[in-house]
Amino acid sequence: MGKNLTRRSEDYSKWYNELVVKADLAENSGVRGCMVIKPYGFAIWEKMQAGLDKMFKETGHENAYFPLFIPKSYLSKEASHVAGFAKECAVVTHYRLKNADDGSGIIVDPEAKLEEELIVRPTSETIIWDTFRKWIQSYRDLPLLINQWANVVRWEMRTRLFLRTAEFLWQEGHTAHATKKEAIDEAEMIMHLYADFAENQMAMPVIKGIKTESERFAGAVETYCIEALMQDGKALQAGTSHFLGQNFAKAFDVKFASKEGKQEHVWATSWGVSTRLMGALIMTHSDDNGLVLPPKLAPIQVVIVPIYKGLEQLDAISEKVIPLVKELRAKGYTVKFDNRDTHKPGYKFNEYELKGVPVRLAIGQRDMEKGTFEVARRDTLEKETIPMDEVVSKIEFLMEDMQKTIFSKAFDYRQAHITEVDSYDTFKKVLEDKGGFISAHWDGTLETEDRIKAETKATIRCIPFEAQASAGSCMVTGKPSVQRVLFAKAY
Amino acid sequence: MGKNLTRRSEDYSKWYNELVVKADLAENSGVRGCMVIKPYGFAIWEKMQAGLDKMFKETGHENAYFPLFIPKSYLSKEASHVAGFAKECAVVTHYRLKNADDGSGIIVDPEAKLEEELIVRPTSETIIWDTFRKWIQSYRDLPLLINQWANVVRWEMRTRLFLRTAEFLWQEGHTAHATKKEAIDEAEMIMHLYADFAENQMAMPVIKGIKTESERFAGAVETYCIEALMQDGKALQAGTSHFLGQNFAKAFDVKFASKEGKQEHVWATSWGVSTRLMGALIMTHSDDNGLVLPPKLAPIQVVIVPIYKGLEQLDAISEKVIPLVKELRAKGYTVKFDNRDTHKPGYKFNEYELKGVPVRLAIGQRDMEKGTFEVARRDTLEKETIPMDEVVSKIEFLMEDMQKTIFSKAFDYRQAHITEVDSYDTFKKVLEDKGGFISAHWDGTLETEDRIKAETKATIRCIPFEAQASAGSCMVTGKPSVQRVLFAKAY
Repeated sequence: MGKNLTRRSEDYSKWYNELVVKADLAENSGVRGCMVIKPYGFAIWEKMQAGLDKMFKETGHENAYFPLFIPKSYLSKEASHVAGFAKECAVVTHYRLKNADDGSGIIVDPEAKLEEELIVRPTSETIIWDTFRKWIQSYRDLPLLINQWANVVRWEMRTRLFLRTAEFLWQEGHTAHATKKEAIDEAEMIMHLYADFAENQMAMPVIKGIKTESERFAGAVETYCIEALMQDGKALQAGTSHFLGQNFAKAFDVKFASKEGKQEHVWATSWGVSTRLMGALIMTHSDDNGLVLPPKLAPIQVVIVPIYKGLEQLDAISEKVIPLVKELRAKGYTVKFDNRDTHKPGYKFNEYELKGVPVRLAIGQRDMEKGTFEVARRDTLEKETIPMDEVVSKIEFLMEDMQKTIFSKAFDYRQAHITEVDSYDTFKKVLEDKGGFISAHWDGTLETEDRIKAETKATIRCIPFEAQASAGSCMVTGKPSVQRVLFAKAY
Repeated sequence: MGKNLTRRSEDYSKWYNELVVKADLAENSGVRGCMVIKPYGFAIWEKMQAGLDKMFKETGHENAYFPLFIPKSYLSKEASHVAGFAKECAVVTHYRLKNADDGSGIIVDPEAKLEEELIVRPTSETIIWDTFRKWIQSYRDLPLLINQWANVVRWEMRTRLFLRTAEFLWQEGHTAHATKKEAIDEAEMIMHLYADFAENQMAMPVIKGIKTESERFAGAVETYCIEALMQDGKALQAGTSHFLGQNFAKAFDVKFASKEGKQEHVWATSWGVSTRLMGALIMTHSDDNGLVLPPKLAPIQVVIVPIYKGLEQLDAISEKVIPLVKELRAKGYTVKFDNRDTHKPGYKFNEYELKGVPVRLAIGQRDMEKGTFEVARRDTLEKETIPMDEVVSKIEFLMEDMQKTIFSKAFDYRQAHITEVDSYDTFKKVLEDKGGFISAHWDGTLETEDRIKAETKATIRCIPFEAQASAGSCMVTGKPSVQRVLFAKAY
């Protein structure tokens, strides 16, 4: 397998597109904008799902499943929600095909027209709140903490594998609470949970923050987010958590009897991360040789490649390798012993480098004589030869160390790419020359935000959640500002 | 919580519908024919998924994900396939909504009409085989063993929760092989795998068999199935596995270079089980008091209900219960300590009986004095009082024993409801009076099969896979037959 990857420095975007396909993660399908997630890519997504699902359950959430279709009238019930989602949706209008009378093939049966069109869910607030009305009567039914793993469709015109596809996979949490404070606490807790997952499992540093009004979810009162930085200096929104106030409760008339016996509308949140995280993971760590995966999410953590001539040598190697495989698996590592005779070791080395397998062990005749293995780590590409009886402890060390090292590298890059600026000229210059996040004062108006976006393509990624307030004046208008915000060009 | 379940003997169908809703498994949604799977029902489905997914992976299959939408032209490529699925599908014709000019609300934007309509997948053979063409070049790429967990849509006119819904969840396996024999072996292996899952995890006895031509999957050469028997004497098809021959390979032009260097079409299988299994699980074991769940699939295996007055008594009970909960959890059991003060013990007893929690422990003041727990098992409703230090071993015993007992009960019922008949008159009588499977000789013609179906509503559920051939003559026509087949009325 020749890698022939375009270098990142040459064309970052091309490098990404090639890598996704060559590393067998995903590919475009025959359906416009819809991707096929290939087994290797899906195995990474399954690990992400498992990690997140565990965290959701540990924080009291339960999974459920709601319909794929949303009646058109439901979408319209929350005014800003429909404005945000109606423009890009797949509409089901008929429920039958039939043979054309002229024998030209199958056509939509005009007699099978739906009375009310159905929208393929772009997100499920409306259908879920229509259901919550039946589930919530009293304060005893609250909080209601529901999550759904599902596919959703948004009719994007320009698509890119994982980053922006018409259909994507995600989880969407939907919760209902008795008080405003509880709902805000939930939305913030989920932001922290997402950040924990991103940093400790994906090894991807993120900044927690709040979206400005113009970047808010359609129907939300407040949108919390985690923002990551890719290696090309562009930001990527990796997850959002919304405090929805009573907007959906009012639109769908969901009330509860409080302890005091009053009828009150409930308070809501919704939150989600999607297969977009796959794009973030790829772009945060990978290099010109291919994928770099954090050990916690790697479908194969250790690959063992035998170097041999003839079956006799392979048998001798296998005798050493098979007990090692067993020992590593017993410790919970996923190990592949690639003894295929259809491919040469060099081909295999290339393949596993491209696919980001964290640790590669190789064993040839000299190793057999000396009782050693060659150990190569994917992140630094360092190789060393170690005695067989040290292999297990070496791998235990590497699994921990690589998880940390990969995070640190990404963290250092991110920190080096947060630039404080105080003038709009410097802002433009930094944006062009260096990229990354730019921390600057902003006067808080939509007008200034729009102007900056129109002139530079940079958007406000977030108002950082954990930053100190520090007074200043807007870099564009000079008006007063209470806190710096983070700008960047973004995916 | 009053159960107020209709009795099975009174109205089996009504009993089922009520039970699904009252036990919090699922409910109808505002979207015609689409259900909401509630958290408790979804937790059972998740256990089924986990069990099956493990078995698929252990037999070499990998998960992937393919598009929700299928271009209309793809469906048409395999002639019998389109005939089977075109009649009941959701058709996407537009990709945008807009505000009506007259301000009457949102309407489908007529300018956003798709050039080619998209069908919401009723099953994914076509889109997957369109993809496999790119994945398969040489015998080295075979076998290709793929599974997908997904939602699918079939526009059923008469729907029932879990048993027949417009949208349902399922897994669909799709495999490609170099030889006919390998593909047949795969399809048969999966039939056995499904039977293993049904019997050993769902505790539901099944009969393995082959479908007659008229009951075959649209596009298959042979359909293998597992058939279960519900308590009302009707059969339920619980899973199917199809040998597809080269039909899809030819329709989508999927060829491989054999070891000898020849270009050949590949051989295929597909197979699936769905949320319909939930209906089968419920109807196989449950009784007039509610759900009965096999311990292996119960979301809560043990519930502990304290009987107390005042916080002081609860504290004392908790002191005994909490270490027990820890010990049971450490052994891998899911345990709930229901110390809610908003509901009385009697209400809780009813609730967990209705929800089929296998073991209920209760502890009150007399138990505290005597150092005992009351242990109740859900299947037989037997109760006994046992010393605290025997509780853990008792639960270990019950988890094993109930799994077996539940299976045996269903097995005995099934065996008692397989009736051999040799005349069509007896056939009709047994069908009316007793129900269940009827084992009879059939002449192998579609004509006779159709006549029996039209006259009695019974269909041939399968030609049993493991039965001995035994010559006889068709109960209807008197023509020769080589083997008895199983008839039943079916869900």
